[in-house]
Amino acid sequence: MAPLAPRTGDAVFANVERVNAELFTLTYGAIVRQLLTDLEEVEEVNKQLDQMGYNIGIRLIDEFLAKSNVSRCVDFKETADVIAKVGLKMFLGVTASVTNWDVDGTSCSLVLEDNPLVDFVELPDTCQGLYYCNILSGVIRGALEMVSMKTEVTWVRDMLRGDDAYELRLKLLKQVPEEYPYKDDE
Amino acid sequence: MAPLAPRTGDAVFANVERVNAELFTLTYGAIVRQLLTDLEEVEEVNKQLDQMGYNIGIRLIDEFLAKSNVSRCVDFKETADVIAKVGLKMFLGVTASVTNWDVDGTSCSLVLEDNPLVDFVELPDTCQGLYYCNILSGVIRGALEMVSMKTEVTWVRDMLRGDDAYELRLKLLKQVPEEYPYKDDE
Repeated sequence: MAPLAPRTGDAVFANVERVNAELFTLTYGAIVRQLLTDLEEVEEVNKQLDQMGYNIGIRLIDEFLAKSNVSRCVDFKETADVIAKVGLKMFLGVTASVTNWDVDGTSCSLVLEDNPLVDFVELPDTCQGLYYCNILSGVIRGALEMVSMKTEVTWVRDMLRGDDAYELRLKLLKQVPEEYPYKDDE
Repeated sequence: MAPLAPRTGDAVFANVERVNAELFTLTYGAIVRQLLTDLEEVEEVNKQLDQMGYNIGIRLIDEFLAKSNVSRCVDFKETADVIAKVGLKMFLGVTASVTNWDVDGTSCSLVLEDNPLVDFVELPDTCQGLYYCNILSGVIRGALEMVSMKTEVTWVRDMLRGDDAYELRLKLLKQVPEEYPYKDDE
């Protein structure tokens, strides 16, 4: 998708250190449970998960750039493709399809083919309104901000809320081509 | 280590679904940070991490028994070996050496050869007293309880606290051979 022979998601994923997906899923579940206990308001939990994801994303982008051989994408379409086929694969072992582009090429959807965050998860009735996977939208937002793209990333379909798929909406708000906020000291 | 040709940790690890270790490490770091913010007292954070680990352990044992082909261990020595060589490998991709057995074979140490939980972690001075990896002791305690072994699992060396290794002390408190609390409905 990108210039300079980027490695495929499969190739990258095969060569990074990994941990058991079930351990990750249960650990993530423990975070969500903790936040629900501590914060009480579901809307606050959504915000906190997104913020945690953002903090992770601004770090993970370094690993992504170091391991993927992906260089600067020419446009947002390429960026979305790289997230869907390389980024998600590299970190979660899954891919997504990129659909529903708007006419000016600044908004699209990522439809996840699988979602390891939600294995064994059922939401009780008291959690209506929870975006359980909100950490993931935060990660993408944080990672993109580190490569000069301000975005809005929101869930538009969520199987835990009764939808038929996991669909993330990506909207490019602002691109700052000159800035290069990749920090050497991190 | 156990009868019925158990699979090695490597073989099991190669065949389970996995996620990127850095994502896991950063996600775990986000939990610890959240708990430090919410609970304030480091001792409370230690307890909460241990409890989260316990809750994860009582679930993970199912995956372990299903995937590892390990059957009931004949004694605590075999149990410790299986944790060190198969369990840790299967979930974290690392192994441990088992040392410092007491004379009656009910206490030993697991010395981790690597610890993916702590990559990039430095504890600020305000976190003296934190057992950053306390989730792991909780996981082992929870998992063992599900196979009828009441244990105490504590960190005796922790590199984040200035020690030269990560050493977990396992102490068998009580074994209930008849009970088999593996639940089909989980």
